[in-house]
Order: sequence, then C-alpha cells, then structure tokens
Amino acid sequence: MNKKIRITVWNEFRHEKSNPRVTEIYPEGMHTTIANFLSKEVDYEVRTATLDEPEHGLGGDVLAHTDVLIWWGHMAHGDVSDTIVAKVKTRVLEGMGLIALHSAHYAKIFKALLGTTCSLKWRESTDKERLWNTMPAHPILQGIGDYFEIPQEEMYGEPFGIPTPQEQLLISWFTGGEVFRSGATWTRGNGKIFYFRPGHETYPTYHQAEVQKIITNAVRWAEPTVCIPDACPNSPALEPLPEDPAAADRPTLGYK
Amino acid sequence: MNKKIRITVWNEFRHEKSNPRVTEIYPEGMHTTIANFLSKEVDYEVRTATLDEPEHGLGGDVLAHTDVLIWWGHMAHGDVSDTIVAKVKTRVLEGMGLIALHSAHYAKIFKALLGTTCSLKWRESTDKERLWNTMPAHPILQGIGDYFEIPQEEMYGEPFGIPTPQEQLLISWFTGGEVFRSGATWTRGNGKIFYFRPGHETYPTYHQAEVQKIITNAVRWAEPTVCIPDACPNSPALEPLPEDPAAADRPTLGYK
Amino acid sequence: MNKKIRITVWNEFRHEKSNPRVTEIYPEGMHTTIANFLSKEVDYEVRTATLDEPEHGLGGDVLAHTDVLIWWGHMAHGDVSDTIVAKVKTRVLEGMGLIALHSAHYAKIFKALLGTTCSLKWRESTDKERLWNTMPAHPILQGIGDYFEIPQEEMYGEPFGIPTPQEQLLISWFTGGEVFRSGATWTRGNGKIFYFRPGHETYPTYHQAEVQKIITNAVRWAEPTVCIPDACPNSPALEPLPEDPAAADRPTLGYK
Amino acid sequence: MNKKIRITVWNEFRHEKSNPRVTEIYPEGMHTTIANFLSKEVDYEVRTATLDEPEHGLGGDVLAHTDVLIWWGHMAHGDVSDTIVAKVKTRVLEGMGLIALHSAHYAKIFKALLGTTCSLKWRESTDKERLWNTMPAHPILQGIGDYFEIPQEEMYGEPFGIPTPQEQLLISWFTGGEVFRSGATWTRGNGKIFYFRPGHETYPTYHQAEVQKIITNAVRWAEPTVCIPDACPNSPALEPLPEDPAAADRPTLGYK
Repeated sequence: MNKKIRITVWNEFRHEKSNPRVTEIYPEGMHTTIANFLSKEVDYEVRTATLDEPEHGLGGDVLAHTDVLIWWGHMAHGDVSDTIVAKVKTRVLEGMGLIALHSAHYAKIFKALLGTTCSLKWRESTDKERLWNTMPAHPILQGIGDYFEIPQEEMYGEPFGIPTPQEQLLISWFTGGEVFRSGATWTRGNGKIFYFRPGHETYPTYHQAEVQKIITNAVRWAEPTVCIPDACPNSPALEPLPEDPAAADRPTLGYK
Repeated sequence: MNKKIRITVWNEFRHEKSNPRVTEIYPEGMHTTIANFLSKEVDYEVRTATLDEPEHGLGGDVLAHTDVLIWWGHMAHGDVSDTIVAKVKTRVLEGMGLIALHSAHYAKIFKALLGTTCSLKWRESTDKERLWNTMPAHPILQGIGDYFEIPQEEMYGEPFGIPTPQEQLLISWFTGGEVFRSGATWTRGNGKIFYFRPGHETYPTYHQAEVQKIITNAVRWAEPTVCIPDACPNSPALEPLPEDPAAADRPTLGYK
Repeated sequence: MNKKIRITVWNEFRHEKSNPRVTEIYPEGMHTTIANFLSKEVDYEVRTATLDEPEHGLGGDVLAHTDVLIWWGHMAHGDVSDTIVAKVKTRVLEGMGLIALHSAHYAKIFKALLGTTCSLKWRESTDKERLWNTMPAHPILQGIGDYFEIPQEEMYGEPFGIPTPQEQLLISWFTGGEVFRSGATWTRGNGKIFYFRPGHETYPTYHQAEVQKIITNAVRWAEPTVCIPDACPNSPALEPLPEDPAAADRPTLGYK
Repeated sequence: MNKKIRITVWNEFRHEKSNPRVTEIYPEGMHTTIANFLSKEVDYEVRTATLDEPEHGLGGDVLAHTDVLIWWGHMAHGDVSDTIVAKVKTRVLEGMGLIALHSAHYAKIFKALLGTTCSLKWRESTDKERLWNTMPAHPILQGIGDYFEIPQEEMYGEPFGIPTPQEQLLISWFTGGEVFRSGATWTRGNGKIFYFRPGHETYPTYHQAEVQKIITNAVRWAEPTVCIPDACPNSPALEPLPEDPAAADRPTLGYK
C-alpha cells in the first residue's frame, strides 16, 4: 500500500516555554520529539499543531486530512476551545484515530469521548514506573517484552475514572505502592482510541525507546478504515407493511 | 431494608399538549403514566419533572435526592440547558442510575455519557416490533419470556451509534425488515445506565404490561450503591521512595 | 425476602492435612473457616464439600441445591473428575454463581468456563500485597476502601491468561515489583463468576476482615436470578413464510 | 510484506457425500468452494482438511503451520476427537485465528473456547435472512453496505448462548420473525475468534459475493501477531524483598 498515514501531533506546548527543566529535555517541544521519531516510519506523514496557534493549529482542513491525532495537554485544558473539541470529536466518531498521552486523561476531548470523570491519584516524586504487558498479542505491544521500566515518572494511581476498557494493555507498578491501567483502548463510533499514561514533562520519557515503540505501533493500530459522517435517516421499509387504518388522521411529524 | 428508592421521571411533555393523538393516549403526560405504574412498588418513591418547569424541574436538591432518573425527550432536546445536563452527568458519575427511554437516545445527557453519535435509522409507520430477550438471567428481564411484541411502534434500525454495550439485553425485529439493539446497559463512573427503545408518543406503549415490567425492574437494577464525588487527589507514597537528587531544582507545580 | 442463599464451599483440603504450617492456620480446613464467616449472614445457608469425599462432595442433588459455589483448589486440580467438572459447568450455565479463589485460577472448572490458559507468574516469598479498588461502586467492594493490604501473600503477576474481564474490580501491587488483576467478573450463560486472587494456604489470609467482607459480598452478588436448562429448540415461524418450491424434494433432517 | 497468511479450511464433508441437494451445490465439498475464493488473494496460502482424513487432516505440523483456521461442522461434532480439539485450542491460545462458520456454533472447539452452551433457536424453512451491519468501520465488514440479504437460509434465533461479544458486527433479521447476532468477535489468549452465522449446507450461501467478502476479510483480521506457548513461571522478585523470619521453617513446595 502506498498510502501514507497522516498524523497530527498536538501539544499544549507551554511547559516547554516556561519551565527550564522541561525546555532542557524538549527544547523544541514534546510534539517535535514525538514527530521526529514517528517520521522514521516511511509510511508516516507527520505534522504538528499547538495550543497557541490560531484554532490551536487544527483549523481549516487539518482534521479532515488527519488519520491519527496524538494529544498531549496538561496545565491548560481549559484553554482549548469547545468548538475545536466538538470538531475533533466529530472526526473521531467518523473514523479518525486518537492517541491520548499522559495528562490528556483530563483533556476535554478525552473526557467527551469516554463520558466519565477520568480522574485518578497522582504524585510528582521519585517513583520508578514498571509497565506490565497484559496483552502480549496486541499490535500496540509488539516489540515490548513482559514489562519495561521508566526510571522516574509522575505517579498515576487507581481508581482511574474510565469506562472498563475494551482492551486492557498495560498496568503500571509504582515504587510508592500504587498501580494504574496505563494502556487501554476503546472504540467510539468509527474511531479507535488509545490511552497511554507515561510522559510527564519533567522527565525524558518520550526519548525512551519502549515509549516511542508503543506510540509508533499505536498509530498503525489506530489508522481509520472508513470516514462515515453522522446520519440519522428516515428509512423506507424493506418488507411489505400492513395498511395503517389511522393514517388519514396522522399528523405529519417533521422533527428528529 | 426500609429505605425507599427515590425515582424522578423526567418528560419533555410537549407532544402531549400539542398533538391530540398523544393527548388521548397520555392525557396527563407520559411521565404521569410512568410514575403511576412505578408507584405500585411499595419501596419506590416517585416524583416527576418536566422540561418547561423552572430548571426543567431538576433544580435545588432534586438530583441529590434522586436515586434513579428516567428520561423521555424527543422534539426539544436542544431546549435542555447545558447547565442542567452537566449537573445530571455529575450525579450519574457519582452513582445515580439513568434509564433513557426511546428518543432519549438523542438526549444531550445520553450522548454526553456514551460519547458517541447515538444515531440510528427510523420510520413512523405500521411496523410491529418484536423484542427478543438475549439475556434471560438479567434482573431487568425477569418476568419477560423469550420475546414480547408491541403491536405498532416507530421503527428504529441499525446501525445504532453506541459503544458496544456492557450487557446486550434485547434485540428488536420490525415488520419492515430492520433490527435494533433495544435494551442495553453501560456503566459510567459509579452510575448504571439502561437504554430501552420503545415508547413513541403516538402509540400506547407505556400502557403495555411488558414495557412497564421492564422499566420497573430497571429501576431496582439501577439503584446506586454509593455516592462518590469526583476527586483527583495528590497522594503521598505508601512505600519508601528514593531521594530525589534533583529535588532542590524542582519547581513547585501547583496545577492539575 | 425469606429465601436463603444456599452456598457450597468446596476445598481441595489436602494441604491442611500434610503441611503443619497450613494445619496451624486452618486446623479444620480452609472451607470451614470460610463457611464459618459466611454463616454469620442470617440469609446464608452454608455447607462444605471436599475433594476426597465421594464425588468430591458434589454428588446427588448438592449442585441442584447450591446457589453459589466457592472453589479453592491448588495441588490436585488433576484429581477432580471430569464428570463432576461437567456437572458444575452445566449448573453455572444454568444460573449458579461461582467464586473462584486463589489457585482456582487453574481449576478445571474455571478454565473450562473462561476458555483460556489462566496462566500467570508466581512466587512464594515475603511480598506484601496491596489490593487497589478500581470499581468502588461495585456491590462486591462495598465496605472496602481505596485499598487494603495483606501483610504477606504469594505473588501472582501479569500477564494473567484470562479473557478481558467484564468488570475489573481489584488490581494488586506486590513488593517485588509485579501487578495482578486480583478481582474480576465474567458472565457465562446465566451464571455469574468472580475470581478473587488472595488465599495462599501458608498465610492466614481467610482470617482477614477485608477478605471475608469481599467473599461475603460476592456471594450476594452471584446469587442466581434463574435456573434455565440448556435447550436448542426447533422453532416454528412467528410470521408468514413464503411457500418453498423445493419442499417436495427436501429431505427430512433430524439432527441438531 | 511477502509473508503469506496460511489458511486451513476444515470441513466435516459428510452432507456433500450423502445429500444430493448438497452435492449439487458443493460438488467438491464446501471446503473446496471456500478454499477457491480465498485463493484469489495473492497473499493467502490455502489448504483444506476434513473430518474423515487421519487425525481429521490436522495431524503432524498442520496446525503449527496454520495462521487462520476456518471451521465448518454440523452433523458430526461428536466424531471430532477430543485430542485434536485440545490441540486446536492450544494453537488458538498461542495466537492462531479461528473463524467458526454456521453450525460450528456447536463445534467442540468453539464451545471450549467460549465456555458457554452456544445454543440457539433454529428452523429449516423458506426464511430470507437480512444481515445488518452494526459496526461499519470494522475491517471484517469493509465492502459490505448497511445490510445484505441471503435469499433463503436456515433460521438461527436468539437467545444465542454466547458470552457478550467483544465486537458485535452483524445482526440478522429473518422473515419468520426472529433476530440473531450473526457476526461477533472474541479474543481468547493470543488468538482472535470470529463467528459468522450463514452457511447452511442446502443453500448456495458460500457462492454469494458478500459472504465470500466477509470470510476473506476475516482471515486478514484474524492473522496472528505472535505465537506464545503457555507458561506459568516461578518469577524472581524485581525489587528488594524483606527477609522472611519463617524461612527456615518453610517447606519446599514444588507443585504448580
């Protein structure tokens, strides 16, 4: 197949400008780091978009030309316009894939698609995270062994306020004593959604090979098969129906 | 147990005032018909609320004192205030049960909880509907046989734009040749959701015994076990953590 | 409701006779300890059965008169007769609840109902187990907080070879660095199944209050609503069918 | 990718020899018809196997060299050896895909993987079957519209004794008034399973384009990602554990 998978990596891109620790790790922003490793796949065509661009970089036909959207947000979820969120939601339901990273558990778009609080426990400290592979046959986990470790990461702990995942891919162990469903999938409409926990801005998580491998795999998994716009059609019968004795009285109902 | 299950039956209550055919079937409104049959259960405490009341009848502590909310809406989904929808959603995620009837597939609250389009095919005609019981052990279907029929109903047809149900309870056959997932459940946060298809306003569906039985059963099934407000706590470690060599440099991060 | 829930606690009951450490913890067998705490519920009627009784204590009408079966096995899964396993499976599919404890992940009956290997990692050592509550509204977890700890337990680790649970209730953290889906539910036919991880024979786990609470809750959750024997009926049409031009040629087919 | 998908089409192959009507439709057996249309895909490598061959045609390394197994059985499920069923089950749990056609709902292998009765209603008559597409984005349904019809087929009706499908793909409408979940998927271990209802031996169903398209798509969907043999390893700790004060007393336990 010659067709490329068109990826848009969306990043809030504020920590990188205000926190020197983050700037040091991601001098061009997390989106650039992510775009760079994805671009190594010959069939991936990658662009980026950030919060402070006009329409958050998602205006015009960007979404229409995006097969898989990757989303990283954290401190400024409230600054994302409801109009853009509605457009992204429509595109996911039509078929676009969505990969929500780390604090995107609290992104408007993630919460709107899952329908729940998406709340969790958290702690910024010196925890090590060990992610266990609970579904080794899943395409997203190919190349990942029984587990992998991130030397230092923010802790996210259960209960995680999500609907029971369709597929449960990764569960994290944290030094401080917590566990977390760190990789999980859902289908919403025609679109596939993958949530992947790691990626706190103050750690070099997106430079780590296993993390890059999982995101790279997830793009291929989330590639759309279709683009089906929403419709709620009035449909004629396919089989003979009885006559309606009350038809003459029936008012014409035009709503729906 | 002496505690009563507190039910609020919410109805748009507009067809009944404007369409003589509907007025004839439900002279006091569908909500009153539903409240009346539910009130026969000695442990059910039933109130009603309608769209054109202040705050749609759901202001003050009504939701806080509601265990199970039943929702019927059709022609005026857009008139339901987003503020009220947000309050109802919060209560469901805390634990309140929700029973969405018929055209409530398109109610803002239903779509917000499921995250999808909830679109479908439809036809107002002379179809008979036969609902097949696909999960005879489920509490909601006790007292219902292999199937039951509704002599005339609006057709709803697949594809139905919902997430795969957690439990698939009923599938409808229509004379005109369509099928539909007419009874299905989901969990969202601490709340249980049941969608039940029948109930077009121009037919006496809510006067039918099987329909009443299912709604009555569903209330008991949807009764909350808990009321847990949303929280996203910063949590101290439960196990010893290593020292952070970079702690002195770490900026204090107050967001989340 | 006056009707009692009839519980059979099944135990392999061999470790208790051969290992002095186990004898000390469970002098009358684990089944007796479990039966004793369950018997405190006024509506629970509890009996026990063990491997070395005739027909493993499950002959005659024992299963027909059991609403919820609790199963603990470990070293002697292979000694359980396939005939008895088939009878238990039939009863679960008819409606009986099944609670599989600890090493019962490898019991013939559990594997036959789930259809998978049910394999896992394990280690007998000095791990502490902390069980996180991932579904605080679930009836089985009422009275359990955010988490509880078992001071010392055998480690079970992911990947756990189960179908994705219908409800994911508990995830364990172990000192040695592993995680495990320690509480999960499935529906099979008309019966409800709960797997609960803790309970290695060399630790006093079934004397611990939280463990007793969860098993006690699970019995009530697993109580059957129905008893429906298996059937695969030849069913006459409910709607008119066209004539079959080839009917005269059609051989009578009696199989199925 | 140059690697071919290796398919084995298994057929009971008895009706074709004993029933002239079936012989006329499938003179070389249904397996040959299915193998022929699958062989049009350049990356599919197809072989067949039948019940009355030695080891049912599945001996030696056939299963080890099969990526996707297609299974059609009806009148002779009981003649399939339990040993072969166990081998097939092991291969599915390792990663092999399984496509169960029509009466294979009652095949030993299908029941063993799903864990339920897999019973249903049935009728051989003049029903038309209309299959509705409930998940138009699914890879298995690409090229299939909103619905397709089979002019005459055996009726299968709900309730269908299966665990709630992971993905609900097709629901059938029958002239005689029934509905059926005609396309559904499950994951068992590392293997993917697709059940597809149509294919009664006395109708030319496997000659129909939509049916061929779905089976062709399903093979690609079910292709394994891995082959992971079952294991239940004793695993050393990854983190430091406390000393065990009772270690000296602890008997060595060699079971599991």
